[in-house]
Amino acid sequence: MKSFQEMTKEELLEEKKNLEKEYRKYQMRGLQLDMSRGKPSAEQLDLSMGMMDVLHSGEDLSCEDGTDCRNYGVLDGIHEAKVLIGDMIECHPDNIIIYGNSSLNIMYDTISRSMTHGVMGSTPWCKLDKVKFLCPVPGYDRHFAITEHFGIEMINIPMLPTGPDMDMVEELVANDAAVKGIWCVPKYSNPQGITYSDETVRRFARLKPAAKDFRIYWDNAYGVHHLYDIDQDNLVEIFAECKRAGNPDLVYKFCSTSKISFPGSGVAAIATSANNLEDIKKQLVVQTIGYDKVNQLRHVRFFKNIHGMTEHMRKHADILRPKFEMVLNILKEELEDIGAGNWYCPKGGYFICYQALSGCAKEIVLRAKKAGVVMTPAGAPFPYGRDPKDSIIRIAPTYPSIEDLEMAANIFVLCVKIVSIEKLLEE
Amino acid sequence: MKSFQEMTKEELLEEKKNLEKEYRKYQMRGLQLDMSRGKPSAEQLDLSMGMMDVLHSGEDLSCEDGTDCRNYGVLDGIHEAKVLIGDMIECHPDNIIIYGNSSLNIMYDTISRSMTHGVMGSTPWCKLDKVKFLCPVPGYDRHFAITEHFGIEMINIPMLPTGPDMDMVEELVANDAAVKGIWCVPKYSNPQGITYSDETVRRFARLKPAAKDFRIYWDNAYGVHHLYDIDQDNLVEIFAECKRAGNPDLVYKFCSTSKISFPGSGVAAIATSANNLEDIKKQLVVQTIGYDKVNQLRHVRFFKNIHGMTEHMRKHADILRPKFEMVLNILKEELEDIGAGNWYCPKGGYFICYQALSGCAKEIVLRAKKAGVVMTPAGAPFPYGRDPKDSIIRIAPTYPSIEDLEMAANIFVLCVKIVSIEKLLEE
Repeated sequence: MKSFQEMTKEELLEEKKNLEKEYRKYQMRGLQLDMSRGKPSAEQLDLSMGMMDVLHSGEDLSCEDGTDCRNYGVLDGIHEAKVLIGDMIECHPDNIIIYGNSSLNIMYDTISRSMTHGVMGSTPWCKLDKVKFLCPVPGYDRHFAITEHFGIEMINIPMLPTGPDMDMVEELVANDAAVKGIWCVPKYSNPQGITYSDETVRRFARLKPAAKDFRIYWDNAYGVHHLYDIDQDNLVEIFAECKRAGNPDLVYKFCSTSKISFPGSGVAAIATSANNLEDIKKQLVVQTIGYDKVNQLRHVRFFKNIHGMTEHMRKHADILRPKFEMVLNILKEELEDIGAGNWYCPKGGYFICYQALSGCAKEIVLRAKKAGVVMTPAGAPFPYGRDPKDSIIRIAPTYPSIEDLEMAANIFVLCVKIVSIEKLLEE
Repeated sequence: MKSFQEMTKEELLEEKKNLEKEYRKYQMRGLQLDMSRGKPSAEQLDLSMGMMDVLHSGEDLSCEDGTDCRNYGVLDGIHEAKVLIGDMIECHPDNIIIYGNSSLNIMYDTISRSMTHGVMGSTPWCKLDKVKFLCPVPGYDRHFAITEHFGIEMINIPMLPTGPDMDMVEELVANDAAVKGIWCVPKYSNPQGITYSDETVRRFARLKPAAKDFRIYWDNAYGVHHLYDIDQDNLVEIFAECKRAGNPDLVYKFCSTSKISFPGSGVAAIATSANNLEDIKKQLVVQTIGYDKVNQLRHVRFFKNIHGMTEHMRKHADILRPKFEMVLNILKEELEDIGAGNWYCPKGGYFICYQALSGCAKEIVLRAKKAGVVMTPAGAPFPYGRDPKDSIIRIAPTYPSIEDLEMAANIFVLCVKIVSIEKLLEE
């Protein structure tokens, strides 16, 4: 098949006519499909229902050191939960604080604390004229929402197939003391599914920040969220790498079991250096008496250990793999080589990212909506919701049934084609 | 019996000698007793073990409106939890946000948000030269820790048998725009067990703050924590009273089920006006995707409704009543009319507060410790840990067994007597 670029104007018009006929057929069906939500499906949630049974009323709710998990106490999490989460994110239990149900909440609190109290004795950010964050794009909209909420200036950093553009990161971090952090989703990134290369991680660990209170905000949201047993991405563990490089305090690692057990009812954690932990706990001890230890215990009793969790993630993968493969196949069959954009084939995570022709993303999302398919708003994966090229569209294949997903994907590629032709005809 | 003040120096010395003999006997037993912790006992926690069974794997975890509680969504809490908590604190479900496990955390977040973002459009407190809070004393140390953490100046307000000294509150609130809030535990207050009188609540609702962003921080921690079925304190519901007075935005009400179900594994909530809720949600939507709905559902399924909760609280009362009565009896038998201090007889809550002779509290707590009885540090119920009269001692009778408690109380009264005599001999 010819690419759109190779077609004559007449051929494009003819193709558009045919595509629109097909599009109208879908429209007339009054569909209501949704590819916008990075949520597990009900089938995935069913995998964790056993968690509801492990702590019945006949069970002793004490943890290994004898602490009664039902009562007050233990600010930073029960030890066995630290071991489990530590294995999950490849960090020592002593470097971990287990929080409540949301890693996003930990990140918010981390920024909020830095605003009011600084980082390890630095000037509170609210007392500074300007605070900046580096934002690899496309990225996770809720990260950007936090920094925007606190009036932090966000600087776009292009994502490369190896991760963020490290030349740019190194230069900005080294030369601008107002740069206090960078948002990273280093494995199966949201939305592209890119895993940072070994070199990228090593360069991160060796940053020479102008600001002493610069930290890497390493949101390892999809650390164990592989689609395949063998063909998995590998991510160099950054905290060990930072220690090796003599920068042990440089990174905060965030994680949760939201897409492992139940979103909203999982456990979340931070892993970082002893110095950072001490700084955090000064505030934490004022903020709370402690998090939900019963739920921590529930997770430990259910997964038992990292091997149990790995087995569990295989079951998630069995549900997700066909969905990802189906969407990727449709993209390949319908859009490969026609010159209407490109995409990555992620080996894990929750998203597929379509990069349309410049100036087409909003229109494609609108077109899809008019045929009954809800997509993540174009622009959402960018600071301030502004995609400078208007080309990135996030596809979330996890939540719909495979039948709905197939139809939604077919409508999506149709919209991509129509809008791309319109764009090319304009030029 | 003569009071200490009526005794001659010789009589006091003789009495002291006898008391010290008794004290040394206790010392030699190498006891380890603890009256410091405002924690439920294991027996109380057992009351809620049924909560572990209501959501088994065969159960549908959807709430009434069909929302799957296992997945993301619902920022402000499931409706049926709002109804339950609403009934518990006498507010409409629409005025409630259900949070995570800790009301302290909500209070912290409320102050933190005011620091960085102000209150309903006011100047963020971190941009102001001076922010002040009124602190009824004695009060809850963790309240004061929050305001201290944020560098907020704390002003002591004496507690009267009717609640805080409202003349002083009214004057400070009306004339000082730096005064942004007041910490209140209005029912069975920590540590005295005082319930604010109807007039006190009505005067609170009619405050005329100089600062538009002044709020009453109404920590209704012991709202349903009665010791008796009939002989209960009644607290006028402040939010309705504020509306009636034309000040609907004046109050934030905080509560949790920490001492109803499980401390650390309960649900916490705020109740306030629509305007305040809107202001809060602007931040909340950035901070989190949502709290633990499964745990909210677990609470609703276990308690069913407010009547179930009331029944449940009766069972707590049956465990707590003998402990409170025993300690109060020992105080009465040993300390009444001897001129060594006084105390309230609370009808609910978690504490008994002993007001010793001025300058004696630290020494009594130290004496108790040397005989193996841990008490809350003297000064703790005051801002900056400073009791200006060094006279207030918080007794927490809930956690120890009744046998341990009896021994601890006997040692305590002995310490009170010895230290009081020493004080009187000094003078």
